[in-house]
Amino acid sequence: MADGAQDTVSVTSLSGFVAEAFRTQGVPADDAAKVAALMVEADVFGYGTHGVFRLRQYLARLRDGGCNPTPQVTVAHETSATAVIDGDNGLGHLAMSAARDLAMTKAREAGIGWVGVRRGNHAGPLAIYVRPQAEAGMIGMAAVVGSANHVPPFGGTDLLLGTNPFAISAPSADADPFVLDMATTVAAMGKIKVLAQRGELMPEGWMVGRDGAPLTDPAKRADGFLLPIGGAKGFGLSVAIGLLAGVLNGAAFGSDVVEFTSDTTSETNTGQFVMALDVTAFGLSPDQFADAAARVFAELRGSPPLPGHAPVRLPGDGKTAAAEARRTAGLSLNPALRKDLQALASDVGLPDPFPV
Amino acid sequence: MADGAQDTVSVTSLSGFVAEAFRTQGVPADDAAKVAALMVEADVFGYGTHGVFRLRQYLARLRDGGCNPTPQVTVAHETSATAVIDGDNGLGHLAMSAARDLAMTKAREAGIGWVGVRRGNHAGPLAIYVRPQAEAGMIGMAAVVGSANHVPPFGGTDLLLGTNPFAISAPSADADPFVLDMATTVAAMGKIKVLAQRGELMPEGWMVGRDGAPLTDPAKRADGFLLPIGGAKGFGLSVAIGLLAGVLNGAAFGSDVVEFTSDTTSETNTGQFVMALDVTAFGLSPDQFADAAARVFAELRGSPPLPGHAPVRLPGDGKTAAAEARRTAGLSLNPALRKDLQALASDVGLPDPFPV
Repeated sequence: MADGAQDTVSVTSLSGFVAEAFRTQGVPADDAAKVAALMVEADVFGYGTHGVFRLRQYLARLRDGGCNPTPQVTVAHETSATAVIDGDNGLGHLAMSAARDLAMTKAREAGIGWVGVRRGNHAGPLAIYVRPQAEAGMIGMAAVVGSANHVPPFGGTDLLLGTNPFAISAPSADADPFVLDMATTVAAMGKIKVLAQRGELMPEGWMVGRDGAPLTDPAKRADGFLLPIGGAKGFGLSVAIGLLAGVLNGAAFGSDVVEFTSDTTSETNTGQFVMALDVTAFGLSPDQFADAAARVFAELRGSPPLPGHAPVRLPGDGKTAAAEARRTAGLSLNPALRKDLQALASDVGLPDPFPV
Repeated sequence: MADGAQDTVSVTSLSGFVAEAFRTQGVPADDAAKVAALMVEADVFGYGTHGVFRLRQYLARLRDGGCNPTPQVTVAHETSATAVIDGDNGLGHLAMSAARDLAMTKAREAGIGWVGVRRGNHAGPLAIYVRPQAEAGMIGMAAVVGSANHVPPFGGTDLLLGTNPFAISAPSADADPFVLDMATTVAAMGKIKVLAQRGELMPEGWMVGRDGAPLTDPAKRADGFLLPIGGAKGFGLSVAIGLLAGVLNGAAFGSDVVEFTSDTTSETNTGQFVMALDVTAFGLSPDQFADAAARVFAELRGSPPLPGHAPVRLPGDGKTAAAEARRTAGLSLNPALRKDLQALASDVGLPDPFPV
């Protein structure tokens, strides 16, 4: 698959292309540049399934009227420590980055900022909305009502829940802040598709069939259901996220969630929240918090591994160096994504983003 | 096991006995009554492993100096929306109920209240510190650094984590509010002990042995490790709780957690937090939130069950009626607990709490 210099693309070049692609659908230049930068940042930090890979989906929704190219992102409700942002059905990154910034501003003044989003859209990986808090000496938290219902309630059979991920970040004196970004299901659908391509089986516990029995053949995934982590526990957690990110903000949850890939014309009313918590309000300097966290992290990493296990890693470990390497040497996109971006460029009348 | 009227004990009678028992260890009357009421409330709501069952443990720590019978619970740091409460190493219920009340007060004013606890102690089930928020039209959240390290990091072998539970509550127009109270491990140690007593095997996924292989014989539980829900995900969640409930409050996390059962003389510096979020700050009346939540809950409950599964239940379902029944008809304590309370009464010079 290697083809020399074409293998990598610089952050500047890739985000420039993504922004231009949005411009063709009527997105104003500032918004296009902002969303493009956040999408590329997702790839820079290794969240490839939630970065530029989603461009096709976003363009289709803009083209078909499901997503508003010229939103006015506004604050619908506000207190000293909370707010609800109305995303006006624009690209999800606009409302979520506004929510993150507002949460951090409020945290500096009130100790905590909790900002919900209504009328948002898919906004990439939650990690990019919590990592900045950790880098600023704060704790971050975020969650979203997933943009498609792939998951039944625990013990049930109707697809009423998304993978409803959440993310938490915290400062550490290590090279990497703590950044957890996880779905509330055991396995992500993407991982299952990869096993199907390889002809490998899934472990028991990832899915069950409509008969309630373990489903291990990834080729039969359409006949079964993703399982929540910890059974009823992950189900409860997923519902709690639906309440906090959806119901509380007047956003979709349950049967009113729009399948955002197959339906490109309906407003999704995606609900999210972002929280920031300033450690100084708790009597600690950011350095004191970071040192105390790093002490425990060192204990955890130093624990002798179980036979057959790699050394213990904390969520977020290695991301700082990997991101720096990608910023310096460029991003290595997989061939399928490169081809897809070239096809998109052709569709919207832009030059080949990867000229020979 | 039935022995007629002795089978049940009234809430008043049981909490009176528990308060008297605390009085024998120098706990002032007001504090003794408050903690006793909360312990019995745990039993009333069906959290039997975290209610009056813990009296022996609490008395031992008071007697041996591990817990301060006459604490001054104070606010160590405070903003409009956050606080840190110093529990002065008193009975954990005192600091946690103060944290819950302060979080709710702040939420009414600032939209959200987030109150951490340092120098606390075991405080019973988290559910009793989040259910009142839901009953008052708020969303509640709480978590605690578990009072004993039973769990290694994912893939590791050193016991550095507790079961680190958390709880979330929300109003619903149903008979029951949503109340999720869960450990971050697949199985609780108590459940494993029950299987051992019955001579039954555990399912794969609850524990692994020191060889990393699945451990299914509950009699060999001391040779293995509890597993976090969702593998690395539950591990990450458990660490996040350690950061939010422990590190942020200057409380114990990692190797400085004191095993509170075997060690009855050392201060535990238990860390917790309680959050309250006022839905009116988000533009909804409590009834509007409760109705919207109940709509989704009805969809979830109405989902046809998987073969072999009971109908779908939401966390907290049935608790309101069960609590009312126990308040009216009395609590039915298991024979072992009744005997233990009688033995405790004898130890501290109190009359038999269950006279014939």
